[in-house]
Amino acid sequence: MDMYNVTFLPDGKEVEVEAGITLMQAAEKAGAYINSLCGGKGVCGKCRVQVTNGKVLADKHSIGFLSKEELNEGFVLACQTKVTSDMQVLIPPESRLEEEQIMIQGAVVDYSQPEKVFVTKLPSDPLSLFEPLVQKIYLELKEPSGEDNIADIDRIMRELKRRTEYQSFEISLRCLQGLAPKLRDNNWKVTATVARHGDLWRILQIEPGDTSDQNYGLALDVGTTTVVAQLVNLKSGNVLGVAGSHNLQSHYGEDVISRMVFACSKEKGLNPLHAAVVKNINNMIKTLTKENGIDIKQITAIVAAGNTTMSHLLLGLIPCSIRLDPYVPTAHVFPQIRAAELNIHINPEGTLETVADVASYVGGDIVAGVLACGIADRPEVKALIDVGTNGEIAIGNNDWMVCCSASAGPAFEGGGISCGMRATRGAIERVEINDGRVMYRTIGKAKPRGICGSGLIDSIYELVRNKIIGQDGKFNLSTGNERIVEKDDEAAFIVAFSKETETGKDLAIRESDISNLIRSKGAMFAAIKSLVDYVGLSFNDIDTFFVAGGFGSYLDIPKAIAIGLLPDIDLKKIKFVGNSSLMGARMALLSTHAFERTVRIASRMTNIELSTYLPFMDEYVAALFLPHTDRKLFPSVDY
Amino acid sequence: MDMYNVTFLPDGKEVEVEAGITLMQAAEKAGAYINSLCGGKGVCGKCRVQVTNGKVLADKHSIGFLSKEELNEGFVLACQTKVTSDMQVLIPPESRLEEEQIMIQGAVVDYSQPEKVFVTKLPSDPLSLFEPLVQKIYLELKEPSGEDNIADIDRIMRELKRRTEYQSFEISLRCLQGLAPKLRDNNWKVTATVARHGDLWRILQIEPGDTSDQNYGLALDVGTTTVVAQLVNLKSGNVLGVAGSHNLQSHYGEDVISRMVFACSKEKGLNPLHAAVVKNINNMIKTLTKENGIDIKQITAIVAAGNTTMSHLLLGLIPCSIRLDPYVPTAHVFPQIRAAELNIHINPEGTLETVADVASYVGGDIVAGVLACGIADRPEVKALIDVGTNGEIAIGNNDWMVCCSASAGPAFEGGGISCGMRATRGAIERVEINDGRVMYRTIGKAKPRGICGSGLIDSIYELVRNKIIGQDGKFNLSTGNERIVEKDDEAAFIVAFSKETETGKDLAIRESDISNLIRSKGAMFAAIKSLVDYVGLSFNDIDTFFVAGGFGSYLDIPKAIAIGLLPDIDLKKIKFVGNSSLMGARMALLSTHAFERTVRIASRMTNIELSTYLPFMDEYVAALFLPHTDRKLFPSVDY
Repeated sequence: MDMYNVTFLPDGKEVEVEAGITLMQAAEKAGAYINSLCGGKGVCGKCRVQVTNGKVLADKHSIGFLSKEELNEGFVLACQTKVTSDMQVLIPPESRLEEEQIMIQGAVVDYSQPEKVFVTKLPSDPLSLFEPLVQKIYLELKEPSGEDNIADIDRIMRELKRRTEYQSFEISLRCLQGLAPKLRDNNWKVTATVARHGDLWRILQIEPGDTSDQNYGLALDVGTTTVVAQLVNLKSGNVLGVAGSHNLQSHYGEDVISRMVFACSKEKGLNPLHAAVVKNINNMIKTLTKENGIDIKQITAIVAAGNTTMSHLLLGLIPCSIRLDPYVPTAHVFPQIRAAELNIHINPEGTLETVADVASYVGGDIVAGVLACGIADRPEVKALIDVGTNGEIAIGNNDWMVCCSASAGPAFEGGGISCGMRATRGAIERVEINDGRVMYRTIGKAKPRGICGSGLIDSIYELVRNKIIGQDGKFNLSTGNERIVEKDDEAAFIVAFSKETETGKDLAIRESDISNLIRSKGAMFAAIKSLVDYVGLSFNDIDTFFVAGGFGSYLDIPKAIAIGLLPDIDLKKIKFVGNSSLMGARMALLSTHAFERTVRIASRMTNIELSTYLPFMDEYVAALFLPHTDRKLFPSVDY
Repeated sequence: MDMYNVTFLPDGKEVEVEAGITLMQAAEKAGAYINSLCGGKGVCGKCRVQVTNGKVLADKHSIGFLSKEELNEGFVLACQTKVTSDMQVLIPPESRLEEEQIMIQGAVVDYSQPEKVFVTKLPSDPLSLFEPLVQKIYLELKEPSGEDNIADIDRIMRELKRRTEYQSFEISLRCLQGLAPKLRDNNWKVTATVARHGDLWRILQIEPGDTSDQNYGLALDVGTTTVVAQLVNLKSGNVLGVAGSHNLQSHYGEDVISRMVFACSKEKGLNPLHAAVVKNINNMIKTLTKENGIDIKQITAIVAAGNTTMSHLLLGLIPCSIRLDPYVPTAHVFPQIRAAELNIHINPEGTLETVADVASYVGGDIVAGVLACGIADRPEVKALIDVGTNGEIAIGNNDWMVCCSASAGPAFEGGGISCGMRATRGAIERVEINDGRVMYRTIGKAKPRGICGSGLIDSIYELVRNKIIGQDGKFNLSTGNERIVEKDDEAAFIVAFSKETETGKDLAIRESDISNLIRSKGAMFAAIKSLVDYVGLSFNDIDTFFVAGGFGSYLDIPKAIAIGLLPDIDLKKIKFVGNSSLMGARMALLSTHAFERTVRIASRMTNIELSTYLPFMDEYVAALFLPHTDRKLFPSVDY
């Protein structure tokens, strides 16, 4: 087998690979990240790279996505181009996945507040009880005597019962082995690590001396696009740090469907997907423990929340039946396991809990979000909407809950949009148009590389408000504006001119992009409307409307209403909560009561299958207009 | 390092070993078994072997135990003799541990009856409920549909709840992994293996098709001397076979104390002891599964009963504090574990339960015995006495229970007796003396090699009845009898002449042997008497008196009473129950109710520490007479 060297610029990451693998695979090996939305099928055109040295064989996919000039300059699609010589490859800015910006996105600094959720809750609320899933309890045991010669483990349990309100304990064999000298060599002063396990507490380890200050946990949001981890001090409840990274499964497909297809289309297809997310998690653990100067053995608990497919892939469960009618997963409620069973590197006895799912397309991320938003706690009706490729909606109160999911497409995450990108460095996240002048703001104040979800929502609103497009999303070509141009035979609006951009190319929103966005917002709105109608309520009956999603740090709610994505209700009722899945995972990590509540939430929530719910399609068609064909639904919209 | 070949005759087992290791260690490596009582300290003289080829260096121990002629013939103690050349070694009959005879002993064919213990119990007795700890349940599941699309594992649990009375299940991660295709590839027909785990049932595995007929368990009696395993069909409750073997830990010490010393006197001393008993068990599993044509994966459950030290060594728990004041073990109640955690080769998900102990010297074997004898079931007071190196006694009813242990010495197992041996092939197990004529019976009708416990009890009774010895155990030298001789400066009685024996030497009971036996029976009786007095009862208040112990297949109860080993009560009240520990382990394996009962029995039983119980020493001194210094205690004794 011939081997070749491939160097990826600008980072200079080098790797030796077998002949015939793709540049995308080579990049993965080198640890260089290349954007991809379609998972390597050659249909999204996001993985453009420039071969600056070495053989290039252009393929039909590359030819379709690239101009003649670009092909001449050596541009190819990384997922379609095979290594047939030593190569030097430049990853251009728009194709780069910038790890550090994801970190900032994952920091959820603004919207994961209130950090003090446990003290702001009502005292009578069980959620306010601080009782981490895994606890370290320092014990000073009485030395045995002739009058008091119970077994070592009984001595420990007796003291644990005295020191806590817990009365049932069990112990692992590994923890019993070696226990006798550990007690005697340490003068009967030890620290017990105990984990809630169903109705009892499981003693995970006995450590010499007092280590009760050294107990940490991890709240995990395992998203299809991004995996975010918060390091939490289990003694104080404080968040010590947060890390985020692109889900490495992206190499095998961008969305849940393409990953399921990958997992199921070949023998052992599940393994690389499972290994990828475990690598994500281990990398973040390494970063977080290093930054905070703690040992990985001091991490004793993880709570992970993700959608149903992500939970299955994390746990190594075969996801194939999730995507096939009648959409049946292996499990909705997952067993408590040792993280080590998944090769996750924390304390070898440390536990991992996965938040329960509701249905194949309403996962533990939504359940965690419902927990975080307190929807199940009180009689007022509240709603949570998570905007993404699959948009999920949950509505209910302490008495009932319904939910659904709608396939909205990847537009809000930059997918299927010619200038779209995720909310990372260089993404235009805000846009204003006044008198033909465009003002925009990018993430990290960098030169613009593309437009992310919040920027796209702004753009459409501004375009229709300025009558540059009509309420049908079509360009008003009669409007004279130097920014209205033709791109590849269709009308487009230039948001940033080539001279301003990192890529040196115009960033323009095309008519087809606007159509895509209208379809996405239409699907989301139709789902919300269908669910509200289903329970016989109107929008105004909803006390609070929580909006979660990967919009970066900012979503302009009035503009989201004005384009018809969100219902037109009192603005005070709408709250942007960012990563509510992560917040819920952290709450569950810090409170056994909250964790038990997730299981109850999942079992109580009724899932409405929109694909077989007839009114949904009518609602969808009616929503394919700005803001809506039924203008009465949006009385406050002023264009 | 020089290497030498050592061949052990008569089997011809050959091994290459490093220079300087002992013949005992070489034999262990070769798989040749040599008798030993002291664990290689050179103080029991049981490991005599004859070097028929190679260098011999006699040591002080060998010289003390062997005659000049024997030394000239190449006899040495295997534990004290080092390999310094190639060697050929004959293991003489009396030093051979004969595996196959232990098998017969372990068969407990006579006294583990009634096999039908579960049907002979009262119907209202919870013990009569047949409910094995691990069960296989065949499920024909309804295929999922749009109306019924619960998760795969929920479908399984729903059907399990329908098919059983159990309502709480949990599942291991390994069992969930791979579940989805297993169900779909097998037309939704699978067999679930479920194990009781506390208050719920744990799903251990899901197998394709109907395997509910293929479910087996193992009842284990882990004795200090012998490890016995019964293979049980968990569907029918039938015993399929039994295997027994010498506890391979004997290489490291014969009794529990010397094994604890070995485990604790060196770094990692525990490991070889743990590995030895695991090897015992794996060997027996191999034998039993082969004989019965079953796969080891079809064994899904083990219940092991042993004394406290044996339980600790089996589970790999450090036993050092058990033998040191205040006698504290690591645990009395042991966690349910996977047998694979101990490297025991059954189904990798198969469970192992260890019967709970009461105290450091009253173990799970006694608890299992109490279960088997039904002592805790009814208001009548019953007693169980297990005669061995450590004799244990339990007395009680469904309301209260007390127990104690007495260090009786190894005499009843042939230890410390010049002609003593265990109840294996060639052991004299019955003796009668009439008009100076001796009649005896050996196990396996073989030529006599020694005298086992029941034979020793018979002998002493016959000697005193024939006035050959007095009630103080001293020889009546005035009695003219050709069998009364002098051996090594002390009086002795020849039971079998040299011409009759396998060894070609006289088998004689010496005065010192009789003293040893009197001390052993005195300790046992004093313990029984102390315990009965402690609870304010007399012997006649005891409804049934169960006698267990390693006497082979026969103990002559009237003779045991006549020498003052057992109290002089109505013979109908005394029942010899043999291996009650094994019987109890099997009951626990076959009935979750019985298993739970063992935990309650262990926690309910009050242990009386005889070493600090003053009346015991007086009772002991009073019992050093045949039958007893207080003749009124033995009204029926006729000599």
